[in-house]
Amino acid sequence: MSVKTMKLCILGFGAVGTGVAKVVSMKHDELIEKYGLDLVITAISDRSGAAINNDGLDPELALETKEKTGKIAEYPEFGVAGIDGIGVLNEVDYDCLVEVTPTNVDDGEPTQSHMLKAFEDKKHVVTSNKGPLALNFKTLVKAAEDNNVIFRYEASVGGAMPVINTGSESLAGNTISSVQGILNGTTNYILSRMANEGSEYESTLKEAQELGIAETNPYQDVEGLDAACKIVIIANSLMGWDVTLADVDRTGISNVSSSEVKAAVDDGYIIKLIAEAADGKLTVAPMMVKQSSPLAVNGTLNVTTFKTDLADEVTVIGFGAGSIETASAILGDLVYVGKHGGE
Amino acid sequence: MSVKTMKLCILGFGAVGTGVAKVVSMKHDELIEKYGLDLVITAISDRSGAAINNDGLDPELALETKEKTGKIAEYPEFGVAGIDGIGVLNEVDYDCLVEVTPTNVDDGEPTQSHMLKAFEDKKHVVTSNKGPLALNFKTLVKAAEDNNVIFRYEASVGGAMPVINTGSESLAGNTISSVQGILNGTTNYILSRMANEGSEYESTLKEAQELGIAETNPYQDVEGLDAACKIVIIANSLMGWDVTLADVDRTGISNVSSSEVKAAVDDGYIIKLIAEAADGKLTVAPMMVKQSSPLAVNGTLNVTTFKTDLADEVTVIGFGAGSIETASAILGDLVYVGKHGGE
Repeated sequence: MSVKTMKLCILGFGAVGTGVAKVVSMKHDELIEKYGLDLVITAISDRSGAAINNDGLDPELALETKEKTGKIAEYPEFGVAGIDGIGVLNEVDYDCLVEVTPTNVDDGEPTQSHMLKAFEDKKHVVTSNKGPLALNFKTLVKAAEDNNVIFRYEASVGGAMPVINTGSESLAGNTISSVQGILNGTTNYILSRMANEGSEYESTLKEAQELGIAETNPYQDVEGLDAACKIVIIANSLMGWDVTLADVDRTGISNVSSSEVKAAVDDGYIIKLIAEAADGKLTVAPMMVKQSSPLAVNGTLNVTTFKTDLADEVTVIGFGAGSIETASAILGDLVYVGKHGGE
Repeated sequence: MSVKTMKLCILGFGAVGTGVAKVVSMKHDELIEKYGLDLVITAISDRSGAAINNDGLDPELALETKEKTGKIAEYPEFGVAGIDGIGVLNEVDYDCLVEVTPTNVDDGEPTQSHMLKAFEDKKHVVTSNKGPLALNFKTLVKAAEDNNVIFRYEASVGGAMPVINTGSESLAGNTISSVQGILNGTTNYILSRMANEGSEYESTLKEAQELGIAETNPYQDVEGLDAACKIVIIANSLMGWDVTLADVDRTGISNVSSSEVKAAVDDGYIIKLIAEAADGKLTVAPMMVKQSSPLAVNGTLNVTTFKTDLADEVTVIGFGAGSIETASAILGDLVYVGKHGGE
């Protein structure tokens, strides 16, 4: 098998970016053996600046530098302090942008500008970043198409849960009439514990925060904004809709009481924060799900059920968050780009 | 978008083959619009012979002919009585073989010869046929590779449940350490009813036969042979094992009693016919599954859970049988071949 080198520019070096570096390091030799794909990281950026080396950075040294100093710009010899994402893209030699900067759901920046620049420069893009996808999906897809490059974003919806690949590849040729899912692990964890233990929302949230499952500011999760972004991406990319975050009718879980949860359980149901695209409408809200339904998954699991004309119902379940789990979805996309992205 | 014509030779015109013809007919214009893929059926065969027209058969006329006469050889003008599969492959102009003849788990013939001939003739192959895949997986994959053509078989494991695509594409780069699944809908239906209704095996099987869910000769399903074929295909294609049907330690469901089923339910479990590839061993046997597990799906649903090093656990659920559901998986593979199979 001939070996193809693919140079990666990683913008963002938080939980997801460090996961990608770990996975690329861990799987480097195996990917060459299995797919003839030699992944080389030529740039990594964070708020401090970047490390850039067109001959390839050492992912382990990058991770060590980040862990010790908190700044990738401290990377020996090849660190560049203060350079921003666009600056990095102007400097570095790369084939595929891995855009994993923090999600911004207000205007999608600077991620959107990073991705548009990469497309214009005829580079492939793989991302986990929901913001610009939930705000300006069509613009991004058209830019990729116009420049004849590949744009993949499996990790943006539910981490390692294979939603986009299933909807676009396995169900190719199907018409997806509706989608229902639990697209946020934090709220599923809270609701699952409330159902199992009869606990109240506030105390359960507090425990989830102590365990690091909920963030200190849990707003985006518990008020359904994270799930709303994801159902928008699903509707646009897999159902051909043309919608944005503002089109989602959204209710969070902060008003769900333990007595409601208990009453549902007694009737054979369970209350879940369901994101739904059906009948032209997008909804995120607490809903009753039958305990015997494939949707009734517990803990931090995510789940998505597609209703289709040919395959009937297809469901995928997986972990929607986690550094390595999300990096796994990015790696799947990178292997796709390596296989199908030309030279 | 440029439109690419892909000529299909369909060998086998039973439940799956007629499903493929229906789906190709129903989705023809949509596939052109969505993927620039013009699917043209140039041959269809069954036991009676074949219909062959290098300019394209009319799928609706083929379905009507089959329904009225039971014989595709009766197709007006282009029917050929008595010709066998190899004969058809010698006659017809095609790009992709759709091999959907009945499964033979004894020696995999004549399917295996059909597929090997197609590969030698530099044709792509899409199949739902478990037999040769469970018996001689490596031979077939090597023949496809040697001839630089695409070989896809999503429909061979669990119909519309996207096992192969998830394991090979979404989980690319992952090491799959173990797989557990319910890979047979008939047995899942019987065990689900026994659990829900407290009924005995024999009477439940009889009802399933009356409903057309179990076959008159249910041996391959209830004794786990069908599930065994599928776990062999999973282990070979997604886990890199080199195993065959004889390597499966297999126990069917005919000795499962209603009292065992009830005892499991009372303890929060449910008895399922689980196919497992773990620790170098292949097993098909009735096992206890927690009712809260993603594996605990009911009715005729199939399910597969992958345990992996990066993505942790990923589960897919779908209908493992049905004419149109199986054709849906074949269509997904055909779109893949159309996209990536060159001119």
